[in-house]
Amino acid sequence: MILAKVVGTVVSTRKEESLEGLKFLVLQQVDLDKNLKPGFVIAADAVGAGVDEMVLYATGSSARQTIKTDKRPCDAVVMAIVDNWEVDGEIKYKKGVDD
Amino acid sequence: MILAKVVGTVVSTRKEESLEGLKFLVLQQVDLDKNLKPGFVIAADAVGAGVDEMVLYATGSSARQTIKTDKRPCDAVVMAIVDNWEVDGEIKYKKGVDD
Amino acid sequence: MILAKVVGTVVSTRKEESLEGLKFLVLQQVDLDKNLKPGFVIAADAVGAGVDEMVLYATGSSARQTIKTDKRPCDAVVMAIVDNWEVDGEIKYKKGVDD
Amino acid sequence: MILAKVVGTVVSTRKEESLEGLKFLVLQQVDLDKNLKPGFVIAADAVGAGVDEMVLYATGSSARQTIKTDKRPCDAVVMAIVDNWEVDGEIKYKKGVDD
Amino acid sequence: MILAKVVGTVVSTRKEESLEGLKFLVLQQVDLDKNLKPGFVIAADAVGAGVDEMVLYATGSSARQTIKTDKRPCDAVVMAIVDNWEVDGEIKYKKGVDD
Repeated sequence: MILAKVVGTVVSTRKEESLEGLKFLVLQQVDLDKNLKPGFVIAADAVGAGVDEMVLYATGSSARQTIKTDKRPCDAVVMAIVDNWEVDGEIKYKKGVDD
Repeated sequence: MILAKVVGTVVSTRKEESLEGLKFLVLQQVDLDKNLKPGFVIAADAVGAGVDEMVLYATGSSARQTIKTDKRPCDAVVMAIVDNWEVDGEIKYKKGVDD
Repeated sequence: MILAKVVGTVVSTRKEESLEGLKFLVLQQVDLDKNLKPGFVIAADAVGAGVDEMVLYATGSSARQTIKTDKRPCDAVVMAIVDNWEVDGEIKYKKGVDD
Repeated sequence: MILAKVVGTVVSTRKEESLEGLKFLVLQQVDLDKNLKPGFVIAADAVGAGVDEMVLYATGSSARQTIKTDKRPCDAVVMAIVDNWEVDGEIKYKKGVDD
Repeated sequence: MILAKVVGTVVSTRKEESLEGLKFLVLQQVDLDKNLKPGFVIAADAVGAGVDEMVLYATGSSARQTIKTDKRPCDAVVMAIVDNWEVDGEIKYKKGVDD
């Protein structure tokens, strides 16, 4: 899984039918010090994530292992909202403090 | 999923039989400011996308989760035509306005 | 899928049994102007492609969705021989003319 | 599979339900001389790995082939803790000696 | 599939149970002129490959389509030992001659 920040949304009305009701988020990867990295990906939302939240996303066939994305043509999904992460014994990000 | 612009088409008559009837599009990725990025991919079309449209495409096994691509040797599919996207509260692309 | 040119072949006698009879091709990717790009991949042949032909190949689990590669440990397959491609309304490659 | 060192952990309470109970590890890839490489990935833990251990992780659908990750939206899993590796006849890493 | 040379081995005793008995090889990719490329991957062995042999490996779900790796958390497998390869009509590698 990859750490990323939700930075936006994508809207599409003309799409494969099974995608109806799915929300598409624009994600930008972050490094372990919370800095945004270049590049971005569009992921379906399985957990009600909102703009500015730090999340984990999964890709490939694993992106279809949620109730919302099962059997849909979706190759990236936000499957967790991050509370905090820790590296070498140091808390690097804490939700509500570092946002 | 990845944001891309349809820039062309590929024609093939000698191919795996199950691919009969599928349309192959040349896609070029775009950044969040609508600029074309280098590199390109060939994707099957599941939604009737045309040249110059902004689309989302999915890759891997997820590219087979559409009615048109099911069980076919296809690893990239256009599964949505984009209406608009928004980053940090700002509309960055709006179909019909920014084309 | 990726556009590539067949530039060679690989022979192996000691291999997973299910691969018996499959032909392995050396593929080099091409850009939209038909120039060879660095790097290469080995793909199974599902369509009778020969050296010097322009082809499309698919990767991942999609590479097993052909009659010849079904259930085999094969992660790249040539699934189409290209007749022509067109970008921005201009024919960039036409088989038999640009070879 | 990829050689990596466990350098941290990620905590999430709001996540896809099926992920309940899974531990997320921050992994940094290492080269064959045990040096940390830039970049990192978040992987589920299937073997009880701890911070500072050298491990192997698998990605994609293979990351769901463990008892703990089966059918979950998880695209990277630690599936082995490494005892040692050897290159060109020379032991490059030995657990308990090179940590 | 990717051309690579077996350069070493990895040993692990604490691992997902289903991996018992699988041998892990350190592979380094080679270019078409047999030069080692930077970077490496750890792959399961399905064909009895040994150090110094040139092999093909497959990744992703295709890595589980061998008798030894079926349903195991393994994302790379050596599925063929290479006898020779040929590019533009010239034999570039021949086992027993170029080793």
